[in-house]
Amino acid sequence: MHFELKITDPQSAARRGVITTGHGVIETPAFMPVGTAGAVKAVHMRELKDDIKAQIILGNTYHLYLRPGLEILARAGGLHMFNGWHGPILTDSGGYQVYSLTERRKLTENGVVFNSHIDGSKHLFTPEYVMDIQRVIGADIIMAFDECTPWPCAYDYASKSLDLTHRWLKRCITRFNETEPHYGHQQSLFPIVQGSTFRDLRKKSAEEIASYNADGNAIGGLSVGEPAEQMYEMTELVCGILPKDKPRYLMGVGTPSNILENIALGIDMFDCVMPTRNGRNGQLFTSKGTINLRNEKWKDNFSPLDAEGTAFVDQEYSLAYVKHLFKAGEMLGPMIASIHNLAFYQWLVGEARKHIEEGDFSSWKTMMVKQLAKRL
Amino acid sequence: MHFELKITDPQSAARRGVITTGHGVIETPAFMPVGTAGAVKAVHMRELKDDIKAQIILGNTYHLYLRPGLEILARAGGLHMFNGWHGPILTDSGGYQVYSLTERRKLTENGVVFNSHIDGSKHLFTPEYVMDIQRVIGADIIMAFDECTPWPCAYDYASKSLDLTHRWLKRCITRFNETEPHYGHQQSLFPIVQGSTFRDLRKKSAEEIASYNADGNAIGGLSVGEPAEQMYEMTELVCGILPKDKPRYLMGVGTPSNILENIALGIDMFDCVMPTRNGRNGQLFTSKGTINLRNEKWKDNFSPLDAEGTAFVDQEYSLAYVKHLFKAGEMLGPMIASIHNLAFYQWLVGEARKHIEEGDFSSWKTMMVKQLAKRL
Repeated sequence: MHFELKITDPQSAARRGVITTGHGVIETPAFMPVGTAGAVKAVHMRELKDDIKAQIILGNTYHLYLRPGLEILARAGGLHMFNGWHGPILTDSGGYQVYSLTERRKLTENGVVFNSHIDGSKHLFTPEYVMDIQRVIGADIIMAFDECTPWPCAYDYASKSLDLTHRWLKRCITRFNETEPHYGHQQSLFPIVQGSTFRDLRKKSAEEIASYNADGNAIGGLSVGEPAEQMYEMTELVCGILPKDKPRYLMGVGTPSNILENIALGIDMFDCVMPTRNGRNGQLFTSKGTINLRNEKWKDNFSPLDAEGTAFVDQEYSLAYVKHLFKAGEMLGPMIASIHNLAFYQWLVGEARKHIEEGDFSSWKTMMVKQLAKRL
Repeated sequence: MHFELKITDPQSAARRGVITTGHGVIETPAFMPVGTAGAVKAVHMRELKDDIKAQIILGNTYHLYLRPGLEILARAGGLHMFNGWHGPILTDSGGYQVYSLTERRKLTENGVVFNSHIDGSKHLFTPEYVMDIQRVIGADIIMAFDECTPWPCAYDYASKSLDLTHRWLKRCITRFNETEPHYGHQQSLFPIVQGSTFRDLRKKSAEEIASYNADGNAIGGLSVGEPAEQMYEMTELVCGILPKDKPRYLMGVGTPSNILENIALGIDMFDCVMPTRNGRNGQLFTSKGTINLRNEKWKDNFSPLDAEGTAFVDQEYSLAYVKHLFKAGEMLGPMIASIHNLAFYQWLVGEARKHIEEGDFSSWKTMMVKQLAKRL
């Protein structure tokens, strides 16, 4: 994997770069649609590629490990062959899912014992095993196994958890270096900065993570309920420490505004379920603000879904029709909204890239954040 | 509307024709995907047109009347403008849905009072009102308001019901002739032959219906639980009476084999929810037989979904992957299966057309029916 940093914005820490992987290039800043179980919900692979123009998608180690399971993935020749997405893939490590299973897991120095949300069966994830699993899945970018702390979090817990995450990281790196990719293409391991919303812990973690000189670095444990201002404070602090010549990935973020603000702080990669999950609930993100299709006001608005939208759904369907689909419980409603929102997120990061190149990112961002806050 | 009968099969009653409507031509025999509430479930409009190659779709008067309702449809400029399907549309009359609401309706000479399945609200459908509603929806082909009898049905009930359906038909025709299309394109009214599985009633009904010399004629009240042999017996009897120079539409039929057998008896048009409904449950129809994706045997079959299939889903996804999607409850599973099945139905009637043209329809049909019966 190679990262080329092309331009840094003079008025902010925003960066324009290119990541090259064994499955193609990713222009940054980039947004990664989430394909939890190997599929981006309600979206065909060709739509992701041709209409949404996603450059990379994300898979979840926890979900893929449980279903379809490692045997099937290995026999398929990895996730790319299994799901037919031939561009770059990133897998998370399961740390976030394990954190979400609060009642169903036990954390020790060795790893995490948890019960499957599907059938209750018991499983053990260790840092080593999570590396092995991600070798089988075969994503281009794989993530270290970490503990994602909840928010708010006591300082003492956050500090001890951070030390554990750092010890686990060493074990991940050792196992990663002892093993080979299974399918011929290179895999890169990204470590994850933790430390909750404590400045000294984030600083300590960022310094530790930076010292490994990994192909790329991630920031986890944010967007878990803390105020946006605290998220930005942590991102800014961490980005000031992480290497400039490596991509920076802010995990699980966020709203369109969150993305623009974090780009301004030096983040290169994002993922979030928001465009698809909120889309399935009838919320559309547009360059003029958000639309809630559950609102009665759209029922006789026969304008295109988004006159300025870039996807086919934006021109081919009207607001009134898509509102009707949601009201009638037609699957086509969530399908349309998911494509629209993902295409909008891709448009948004594409515009960010363009404005960084053109040197007016900061003023454009200020204007956009104002627009995005509107409720239409 | 114009129907051109091009070829009649020498060994059967199968026919090859072309229907011309204000929204384009329909090569017959034809299959119409069902778009109950103005959307074919889980399928985008562009997929219907470009991938499935549907020539005409069906909408349900009962559902569209309740949701989005006539006010919205009228303001949109009719269903074509509302849902963005610019090819031919046929709407049923609500007779079948009203029949399905056994506990929620009361039938009188005047019409049917029923309670909405959505909110319990009370509505009255009369033959005249159903014509008015279908004028507002604006389909190219609209259906007479009939009573669809259940099966089995006492002779006396079927006979009285048939007389009512015939009286309603006269009222439909009167209202239809008194009114004009709302949107500039011509609408054709198809009457419906009823009579349950009684030969004399079907004969009487077919003769009555034939006497109106309508643009096309339909056969209703079949595929409601009777053995397939009785369905074929009724179809054959009725097709022997209905005008040869007008298209014949067998409502709500059916399995791929049912369609081929009824083509051989002289049917030109079909509709059925089976490809989409069974698809959503993981059943795939193929030229080699049916596949149940719930079956464990597909979990490690990495072959294309249907190597001989004509839709993009057939080549781009594997059996194992689509089985996984169903197991994981991913919407993409039903989306893929719906496209596959609809494309298969279109392929099937397309092959039937080709074999009628080539003069070997009967032998091809015998071979196909054998293949279609297989469970893979």
